[in-house]
Amino acid sequence: MITVTLPDQSTKSFETPVSPFTVAMSISEGLARNTVAAKVDGVLVDVTTPLTQDCSVELIKFDSPEGREVFWHSSAHLLAQAVLRLYPDAKPTIGPPIEDGFYYDFAHLPIKQEDLEKIESEMKKIAKENFSVERIEYSSENEALDAFKDNPFKQEIIKEAEGGLSAYKQGEFVDLCRGPHLPRTGMIKAVWLNKLSGAYWRADADNEQLTRIYGVTFPDKKLLSEHKERLEEAKKRDHRVLGRRLDLYGFEDVSPGSPFFYPKGAVVYNELLSFLRAEYRERGYQEVITPLLYDKALWEQSGHWEHYRENMFLVSEEGHEASLKPMNCPSHCVVFNRTQYSYRELPVRIADFAPLHRNELRGTLGGLTRVRKFSQDDAHIFCRPDQIKKEIADLILFAHYLYRDVFRMEFNHVELSTRPEGFLGEIDTWNAAEAALEEALNESGVDFVINEGDGAFYGPKIDFHIRDALGRTWQTATIQLDFNLPERFSCQYLGEDSKKHPVVMIHRALLGSVERFLGVLVEHYAGKLPLWLSPVQVRVLGIADRHQAFAQEVVDTLNDAGVRAETDVRSETLNKKVREAQLDYVPYILVIGDQEVDARSVSVRTRDNVDHGAKPLDEFVADVVSRIERKE
Amino acid sequence: MITVTLPDQSTKSFETPVSPFTVAMSISEGLARNTVAAKVDGVLVDVTTPLTQDCSVELIKFDSPEGREVFWHSSAHLLAQAVLRLYPDAKPTIGPPIEDGFYYDFAHLPIKQEDLEKIESEMKKIAKENFSVERIEYSSENEALDAFKDNPFKQEIIKEAEGGLSAYKQGEFVDLCRGPHLPRTGMIKAVWLNKLSGAYWRADADNEQLTRIYGVTFPDKKLLSEHKERLEEAKKRDHRVLGRRLDLYGFEDVSPGSPFFYPKGAVVYNELLSFLRAEYRERGYQEVITPLLYDKALWEQSGHWEHYRENMFLVSEEGHEASLKPMNCPSHCVVFNRTQYSYRELPVRIADFAPLHRNELRGTLGGLTRVRKFSQDDAHIFCRPDQIKKEIADLILFAHYLYRDVFRMEFNHVELSTRPEGFLGEIDTWNAAEAALEEALNESGVDFVINEGDGAFYGPKIDFHIRDALGRTWQTATIQLDFNLPERFSCQYLGEDSKKHPVVMIHRALLGSVERFLGVLVEHYAGKLPLWLSPVQVRVLGIADRHQAFAQEVVDTLNDAGVRAETDVRSETLNKKVREAQLDYVPYILVIGDQEVDARSVSVRTRDNVDHGAKPLDEFVADVVSRIERKE
Repeated sequence: MITVTLPDQSTKSFETPVSPFTVAMSISEGLARNTVAAKVDGVLVDVTTPLTQDCSVELIKFDSPEGREVFWHSSAHLLAQAVLRLYPDAKPTIGPPIEDGFYYDFAHLPIKQEDLEKIESEMKKIAKENFSVERIEYSSENEALDAFKDNPFKQEIIKEAEGGLSAYKQGEFVDLCRGPHLPRTGMIKAVWLNKLSGAYWRADADNEQLTRIYGVTFPDKKLLSEHKERLEEAKKRDHRVLGRRLDLYGFEDVSPGSPFFYPKGAVVYNELLSFLRAEYRERGYQEVITPLLYDKALWEQSGHWEHYRENMFLVSEEGHEASLKPMNCPSHCVVFNRTQYSYRELPVRIADFAPLHRNELRGTLGGLTRVRKFSQDDAHIFCRPDQIKKEIADLILFAHYLYRDVFRMEFNHVELSTRPEGFLGEIDTWNAAEAALEEALNESGVDFVINEGDGAFYGPKIDFHIRDALGRTWQTATIQLDFNLPERFSCQYLGEDSKKHPVVMIHRALLGSVERFLGVLVEHYAGKLPLWLSPVQVRVLGIADRHQAFAQEVVDTLNDAGVRAETDVRSETLNKKVREAQLDYVPYILVIGDQEVDARSVSVRTRDNVDHGAKPLDEFVADVVSRIERKE
Repeated sequence: MITVTLPDQSTKSFETPVSPFTVAMSISEGLARNTVAAKVDGVLVDVTTPLTQDCSVELIKFDSPEGREVFWHSSAHLLAQAVLRLYPDAKPTIGPPIEDGFYYDFAHLPIKQEDLEKIESEMKKIAKENFSVERIEYSSENEALDAFKDNPFKQEIIKEAEGGLSAYKQGEFVDLCRGPHLPRTGMIKAVWLNKLSGAYWRADADNEQLTRIYGVTFPDKKLLSEHKERLEEAKKRDHRVLGRRLDLYGFEDVSPGSPFFYPKGAVVYNELLSFLRAEYRERGYQEVITPLLYDKALWEQSGHWEHYRENMFLVSEEGHEASLKPMNCPSHCVVFNRTQYSYRELPVRIADFAPLHRNELRGTLGGLTRVRKFSQDDAHIFCRPDQIKKEIADLILFAHYLYRDVFRMEFNHVELSTRPEGFLGEIDTWNAAEAALEEALNESGVDFVINEGDGAFYGPKIDFHIRDALGRTWQTATIQLDFNLPERFSCQYLGEDSKKHPVVMIHRALLGSVERFLGVLVEHYAGKLPLWLSPVQVRVLGIADRHQAFAQEVVDTLNDAGVRAETDVRSETLNKKVREAQLDYVPYILVIGDQEVDARSVSVRTRDNVDHGAKPLDEFVADVVSRIERKE
């Protein structure tokens, strides 16, 4: 008789033999059918693993990250089984679950894209055969080597393995594996093999070339169609594709990872910066313009030379080693130290949009989200310890204003990361700072989780994660306290006691990388940027040549009012011009004909193809100006 | 009997022997006294040189650059003579005239700063002795070597000399020299030795160390005092000193040649850029934001790799050679080529404020005028050949607007530089382009000079030289046509004939380097930047604590109206606060007392210490806003 504790702290007692599957069955048959694995005393195991003593049991389903990992790992085995049925000479190597499915690498598998369908069918067939999946433990390395004597790749893995060796068997197929796995192949109801590519054994180009098959599976056909829809939607929203189509930005081989913002993209970029600058004026930030290239001496003082050099672009000049700056912090310490601040002058909030460069590997670059050159909406706040709480509270308000009020995005979650092992500085300073951060978070009413011990060695931090229109989460705003850099740069203020005291430095970026944020924004809005950020806000179309004079007057009136308006005088049909304006995602399309000229009005159409009828010109201008001001 | 033609084309006949001095005497004794040298048939010679045939004669005085050169060259001889009288062991090496005087380098002259006075006195004494200065021609190298047998430096010069060898003798002193020189030492009426420094023979640190004495002399004591006043004024206006004192910008060893713009300086910088952006919107420019780091491939295509590499900061990454961009042109060709423009879409005017880097030697760096990192108000206009004239005319208007209307500076002169030898492209294209430039200049009414054959090999150009408040000239705006780069990058437009044609590219920067322009501006205004550019435009001072609430309201009202206003709440006396605001060159200082609070008015004082009396707050706000709009 053993006692099992469930996650809600309730307990159940069972006669042996008992497994997590028995536990699930005792709750409901449906639950048992959907349980893919279990956590027993915190360790992930097969649902069929015998329970031999009192323990806690958590049943894992597909709807959790761990559940999907097990599900897709078993699906990789299913793929290998199907491949071996169709191509007996193929040699399976490794087949892990990944973020959005799984893959398996095979040697001796010369197939083409069109062969995937056949393999997919075979997988579905095997799933239907509903084999039970059994764990095999090998008592020695030799036993395992013997079991895989036909597969040199598996033999190599066995020889390098540490700890026990095990395999999983379903029908005729056995694969070397730690597990855990689904109890039966029949749990896999939907299969999609979506990509074929090349790979190398152990990712080393000197090794044998392998064939990699990517796939994704689900316990329900409906989940697969939803998944395909989501991919379709993400593809339509791909900011790289939209950037080119809308002529916002692009990339060139002559400067990998450094975006070119074309005129329309530069309008959006500069509009974002102008908006932030206006906020900075309101909120007491001071912008600086700083050098990009710094001598090694600066990086030695900051510690970057020791810890970050491989990420920096190095330059040598007249016998000096220098580097393009990957971040602004050290240069802001230099700016702070140009003068002696007194306690009354703090906090000093130094903001900077300097372009930063990080030497990311060419292979990792992609779009605006993985770049080498970018600017942050970066600022460093130099303050007294007693000012931390107020500054943090203001920053939380600022982040709320940006994301909720301006960009209409939701916070997914907020994390407070606290003192780790091997922290730097006094424990009292840490305690006070963490208390200030927690209080500020509590008072702001924001939901947050605490990551105990997950802070940087030089200070605690707060991370904001937002959720975009596709439900994807992005870590954006960061607020990082730093007790270390002010010490390395002797950043001090003159106290009321006329003595010098170290300042506290707060690193903060609310959008993060402006480039990456723009990429997220374009995908969030599917390219239909809000009115205030749209590169062209209004396009004015005359029906015939005789309407062009008034159309131009409308454009001029709008431009004078600070609205980005243009006309389209090409000799194309009105329909075509309207359609193109909609494809360009221009928020307002104004049509001018005889009636409009006579009445000094404009016929208003929006990019969603809604006809808003005629409006007096003055009224339209006032309306659009106030919408832009409200950041619509 | 020979006939002499004077610069005004009049002629005079003389019996031999005749010299330029005789010619001067024939006009006036005063002129003869002031003539330092002469140009005979365009060749600069001593005034005592015999004229042996009919020729043209131009008399050269101190007021011309060539006259000053001769005057200061003779003054260097005077210095050497004085040094040898006082330090017979010293060995004169070389002593040229320079921009603002002359220097002489001596070996074996162990003197200190305080010894300069003694040498200066000796020079004045020798000048008064009024030696005549005589030219000596040596018939052979040996004769010259013998004459300077005690001076190994002069011997080295003699051995390397090409052409005839000559010396000049005044009293007991003889110096190897090509001349020409003043006829008498007595023409030097004012002497000032202003600096002592070290130097190396032939500027090579492996050679013997020498003592360099700098000086300046004048034919009139009044000119020397004016010169000292000018230096004093320039020192007060030195933009490096003012930049630090006004907390605008500064330099640090960790990034030589790259300015740090502190918060106040960044306000000025950004204000300039905002102003230009507004102009760009009006004038049909499109701003882009471009990468800073480019692969060697781009520079090979543009020709910079071959011709400009030593001026670029090189970076190597993943086996690729790359460089920080020293100019924007190639990247703008890349932007232009992202799409296929048609003839109807031209001109395309691409503007960019990207930071540029040039690897200038550390020793040549200084202030904002000699930097390694800077941004230009750079744009490239891609147009059809038939659009050149209109574009140039618009650029001249733009330059006029900037310098005359906005910055209130005068043009000193404008130069049109035309087709050189070894030009690239078709002669017809050049002729048409030069005609367009000349017509545009003529129609603009601007005075200009033509520098025949002084254009770049890839196109003609127009340079604008401005004159600052100290009378110094600066080359600022440049308009450069380019037939070469569009060819290297195949920048073409689709013509009305549906065929592709090469575009003409116009490089243009009107301020030039924004950094350098700011340096010039600070010196031009002696730090008192115009209202619209001032980092703090209004400072509001409450007389007592009870006035602070209204003072803050005044600040808020001004800020809301877009005026940069602040208050000063330190517990200092009002007098001290006013004085400090004036030293900070804040254009308006408002004082708030009981009367002002009651009347909702402000007492207005300007930084020139003029008291403008009380004004209603609303009236003051409206006035200052309209002045800012008018770029006062």
